[in-house]
Amino acid sequence: MTEKRQIAAIILAAGKGTRMKSATHKVLHEVGGRSMIEHLLARVEALGPQKLVTIVGESREQLHDRLGERTAFAVQEPQLGTGHAVQQAEGELSQFSGDVLVLYGDVPFVSTATMRAMIDRLHAADAPAAVVLGFEPEDPLRYGRVIAQQGRIMKMVEWKDATDQERACTMCNSGLLAARAEALFPLLRRVSNDNAQDEYYLPDIVNIAIADGHNCAVVSTDRPDEVTGINSRAELAAAEAQWQTLKREEAMEAGVTLRAPETVFFSYDTDLAEDVVVEPNVVFGPGTSVASGAHIKAFSHLEGATIGEDCEVGPYARLRPGAVMEKSSKVGNFVEMKKSVLGEGAKASHLTYLGDATVGEGANIGAGTITCNYDGYFKHRTEIGDRAFIGSNSALIAPVKIGADAIVAAGSAVSRDVDDGELRMVRAEQMVKPGWADRFHDTMKKKKKAESK
Amino acid sequence: MTEKRQIAAIILAAGKGTRMKSATHKVLHEVGGRSMIEHLLARVEALGPQKLVTIVGESREQLHDRLGERTAFAVQEPQLGTGHAVQQAEGELSQFSGDVLVLYGDVPFVSTATMRAMIDRLHAADAPAAVVLGFEPEDPLRYGRVIAQQGRIMKMVEWKDATDQERACTMCNSGLLAARAEALFPLLRRVSNDNAQDEYYLPDIVNIAIADGHNCAVVSTDRPDEVTGINSRAELAAAEAQWQTLKREEAMEAGVTLRAPETVFFSYDTDLAEDVVVEPNVVFGPGTSVASGAHIKAFSHLEGATIGEDCEVGPYARLRPGAVMEKSSKVGNFVEMKKSVLGEGAKASHLTYLGDATVGEGANIGAGTITCNYDGYFKHRTEIGDRAFIGSNSALIAPVKIGADAIVAAGSAVSRDVDDGELRMVRAEQMVKPGWADRFHDTMKKKKKAESK
Amino acid sequence: MTEKRQIAAIILAAGKGTRMKSATHKVLHEVGGRSMIEHLLARVEALGPQKLVTIVGESREQLHDRLGERTAFAVQEPQLGTGHAVQQAEGELSQFSGDVLVLYGDVPFVSTATMRAMIDRLHAADAPAAVVLGFEPEDPLRYGRVIAQQGRIMKMVEWKDATDQERACTMCNSGLLAARAEALFPLLRRVSNDNAQDEYYLPDIVNIAIADGHNCAVVSTDRPDEVTGINSRAELAAAEAQWQTLKREEAMEAGVTLRAPETVFFSYDTDLAEDVVVEPNVVFGPGTSVASGAHIKAFSHLEGATIGEDCEVGPYARLRPGAVMEKSSKVGNFVEMKKSVLGEGAKASHLTYLGDATVGEGANIGAGTITCNYDGYFKHRTEIGDRAFIGSNSALIAPVKIGADAIVAAGSAVSRDVDDGELRMVRAEQMVKPGWADRFHDTMKKKKKAESK
Repeated sequence: MTEKRQIAAIILAAGKGTRMKSATHKVLHEVGGRSMIEHLLARVEALGPQKLVTIVGESREQLHDRLGERTAFAVQEPQLGTGHAVQQAEGELSQFSGDVLVLYGDVPFVSTATMRAMIDRLHAADAPAAVVLGFEPEDPLRYGRVIAQQGRIMKMVEWKDATDQERACTMCNSGLLAARAEALFPLLRRVSNDNAQDEYYLPDIVNIAIADGHNCAVVSTDRPDEVTGINSRAELAAAEAQWQTLKREEAMEAGVTLRAPETVFFSYDTDLAEDVVVEPNVVFGPGTSVASGAHIKAFSHLEGATIGEDCEVGPYARLRPGAVMEKSSKVGNFVEMKKSVLGEGAKASHLTYLGDATVGEGANIGAGTITCNYDGYFKHRTEIGDRAFIGSNSALIAPVKIGADAIVAAGSAVSRDVDDGELRMVRAEQMVKPGWADRFHDTMKKKKKAESK
Repeated sequence: MTEKRQIAAIILAAGKGTRMKSATHKVLHEVGGRSMIEHLLARVEALGPQKLVTIVGESREQLHDRLGERTAFAVQEPQLGTGHAVQQAEGELSQFSGDVLVLYGDVPFVSTATMRAMIDRLHAADAPAAVVLGFEPEDPLRYGRVIAQQGRIMKMVEWKDATDQERACTMCNSGLLAARAEALFPLLRRVSNDNAQDEYYLPDIVNIAIADGHNCAVVSTDRPDEVTGINSRAELAAAEAQWQTLKREEAMEAGVTLRAPETVFFSYDTDLAEDVVVEPNVVFGPGTSVASGAHIKAFSHLEGATIGEDCEVGPYARLRPGAVMEKSSKVGNFVEMKKSVLGEGAKASHLTYLGDATVGEGANIGAGTITCNYDGYFKHRTEIGDRAFIGSNSALIAPVKIGADAIVAAGSAVSRDVDDGELRMVRAEQMVKPGWADRFHDTMKKKKKAESK
Repeated sequence: MTEKRQIAAIILAAGKGTRMKSATHKVLHEVGGRSMIEHLLARVEALGPQKLVTIVGESREQLHDRLGERTAFAVQEPQLGTGHAVQQAEGELSQFSGDVLVLYGDVPFVSTATMRAMIDRLHAADAPAAVVLGFEPEDPLRYGRVIAQQGRIMKMVEWKDATDQERACTMCNSGLLAARAEALFPLLRRVSNDNAQDEYYLPDIVNIAIADGHNCAVVSTDRPDEVTGINSRAELAAAEAQWQTLKREEAMEAGVTLRAPETVFFSYDTDLAEDVVVEPNVVFGPGTSVASGAHIKAFSHLEGATIGEDCEVGPYARLRPGAVMEKSSKVGNFVEMKKSVLGEGAKASHLTYLGDATVGEGANIGAGTITCNYDGYFKHRTEIGDRAFIGSNSALIAPVKIGADAIVAAGSAVSRDVDDGELRMVRAEQMVKPGWADRFHDTMKKKKKAESK
């Protein structure tokens, strides 16, 4: 229907975010384990844009560091309003002749579908010069209004300048806008800052275009929350809560049991298969996938972990990036796993640290086992063979290999490789001192009594 | 008032539960640590029924495995509607001549009192042929309606067949029904499947009985939630939430402090005495009782545990089945206990695994103590005497006994019994290498520098 | 405006609190980690009162023990109503001639500002004999009513004695009252117990004063929740929830990120700086402060802890009183710290107990390290030097010093001091038994097989 035109997006992110009270740039605060602006970028990237330009101001090096080559940057300094901000992208878009979307780094949850609808509207038969995204919030009180009839805009008006009749209109201006590049920048040059704030307002281009006799259109979203801006920690928490609710519903819809959904926290890329059971109080950091039949018990914390079918995890399991649990393996309470593979059916049930380790099929890692992977300078690997049995309270001093079917006796600090089928025991003699404890108790009781006088 | 008649219940559980998206049968999904159908069975068993027949279809072996002899089973295959399902019980009830209740495996929270009210109504003076359980939900939109006057049913009508006037009636059909066995099965044989779904509908027996000139009655519950069906993971989570809220209120009413009730999760049989204090984020698995004055700290997970008076538990205590804490004993952070008894006043305060152990009165288990109860093939017991002192980071290699007042030195792996009042130390010589660490640091720093080039 | 007069407060706390079902006195139950009555005392102490008198009855020794010299006590026995309770303070106030506030131990959240407003009103031009604190709850149904015109009371009336017209009045009596000492006690002597309960009601003094021709005034709070009484565990939980919500909002307002505010629990004195990030499920016990840039990860429990700038805490960190983390130090999972200082940049990342220890700058405490601080009778200190490296699974047997740059080899139980730059290794020989494990497996498999027959 619409001709295939190129798309560019301008993302406004120059604002200081003072209300956040943070040394971190506002749009780098996170929801679901991903920064706001990365949420927005993922959504706009799904349109296959030719060009992205992020308008930055203070703390822009933080944005450079995080986003790298993912977007071009243009600096707005000083900051003279949204119209002025968009103008700063003109240089980066000098060779660009398609459609331009104006987005906001602190309005991260606009869906790709909504963006697409704005672009499409630009190419409808009435060929609007600009398309504004409107929304109808429950309480529209102080938002700017889009005065429109059947989707055709009559006037954009700030709340403070609106008549009572205009204020009665419930269609609010989200600030998001689409326009052809060739129309956008000429219109922007005609915007004036003749207002109380001495600012150049982006919506003014709509009024100018209308005055020129052009059509301008409003596209409305029926999910007002997708254009909610995030300006404070409280709004950030509210956005997180809303986002989590959605993810929880999706998971349950997909056949995941969440015994207490409100206590399970997802990241943007958490991937849980059908028939996964998640107990209360589980936190999924980024990069985790869980296969069918796995059971994630209470108080578990998983990040960058790959959990196989029918695995048992937790309670109190802490899986860090690079933790891979193969089918039917088990990680129990107070166990930490990092850059390690636990083979099929292997178990590490209690009070264990597995770092930089490979554990073979069916191996049993006793309670209190520590892989000593760090010498203060370098990390080293531990390899444990199939069906090996590591006795409790052992320290495996990497680099070290424990062979298949080998046994490490409880309490051993193993510093040399153990062959297949070998027993390794590192243990001093049992020194027996009959009656010593009785004498000790007598002495100490006297001392305690003396002290308490 | 009513003659003492025998009761049978038919539980419909043949449905696949497709919306659950699960390899587990729908009615085996759990609320409060107990499967739906077991919740229902507990409620109907309280009536002292002569006979229970569960109608099963797909995955019926799962139900056999879980429920065993607790109910008879009858297979419905193919599944031709609720009327057809109930008919399958006829064989099992051929010798039975009392009252029959029709229940649903996925409507597990109908109270015994409500069931009793249905049965009682069957024996009122007007001798109804059938008693239907009605309910008045907040939004009755698409439920079948029970058209009745003063409790006497005029007509049962599916929503899609109902007139506007009938739809305006707010009494809905829960599907639950009571009838005399001798009336039920003959009526069922007269039900036809002449409808859009080609199914035999149970409520049709009511219309047939009325057409025959019999009375039929509706009994209404004032708790519409007791007849809520559970068909998806979201509905399961909602049922869990509702059930937990009830249990939390009961606990507080009984004199338990729940600092943040919404973060404490009960099982169906959790038993907390007066003046128990429960901090935020505690999960009670099945089989746990806690005596008066005990303090359960945050992030604790208790299952099959018996906690005595004035005990201190947690934070981060993980008590597994068979954990018994006697009066005033203490289990602290990152401590796991399984099939073990902790004597009066004994303490295991940090980073410990007590498995298959008996700990005497007043004993002190040092931080990092591990009972090595498993040799890869068998489990063995550890016995620790009264007032024994187990030094930190010790491994007690079961089977092993530590005597009363005995001391195990820190870091010892104890493989032989320790007598009363004896000191056992298993520790190598302190090997001293002056300056070695300084030389190591020099070497490693150079290596690190070389690598980073 | 008002003359500077002395203030006394009478706190009613003689009631049994039967609905609490507790051996602990009602007003000693806690909200935000502090007992109700201590919340109230903190608020009234902010007025700089000359004298505090707490009226006690049963379990008064619990109040003596907790509050010590912070308030005088007067015993009410038997308990004959609120008027009678206030009268018991007369002896303690015999030398006092200023203003008296009547407060309730189970109404702990009245603000200092509200108390101040009551006192100030006492000194307005119309010189009221008594000032009553009124409130307008959402549902005023059974509260006593304050019938007043423009703040001047016409009549105090119990709900059960009120006319329909009086019940329609929405201004309710909170029970709190202010009066001059010289007016209060003479009025109280004139109150009769001629009513159904045979009790002396405090509000009667208002009606008596009015009958005498004196003015009495009502001061109204616009936060009805500040006069909510706490009489049951459910009300205690509700007060806690309300209090937590407020604290969370304050923290976010101050620039703290709470990813899931509803899962973070504060104590009355929790102090979090700007740009602190708190993950879900964190409990702050009393006495904790966290400096800017620190990151508190999920499932952490902090009490009496001082966290420096840019520290990393958790997940599953348990910091107990006296834990001090200096700048950029790190405490990781399953680590407990008590009366210990972790120097700048030092790390204790896994499965560690640091008790009564001092850890130098940049030191690295390996996984599974235990400071053995207790010998069964006394606690001893461990001192670890700057940049020292404690190998995993080590036990440091206090009192012991580890020098700067020293290395303790993994698995060592160190009982003697280690010099600067020294290596200390306490480890037995590696005992190698080739093929032993294979033979063991064969034997045990046979045994297992035999047993299962």
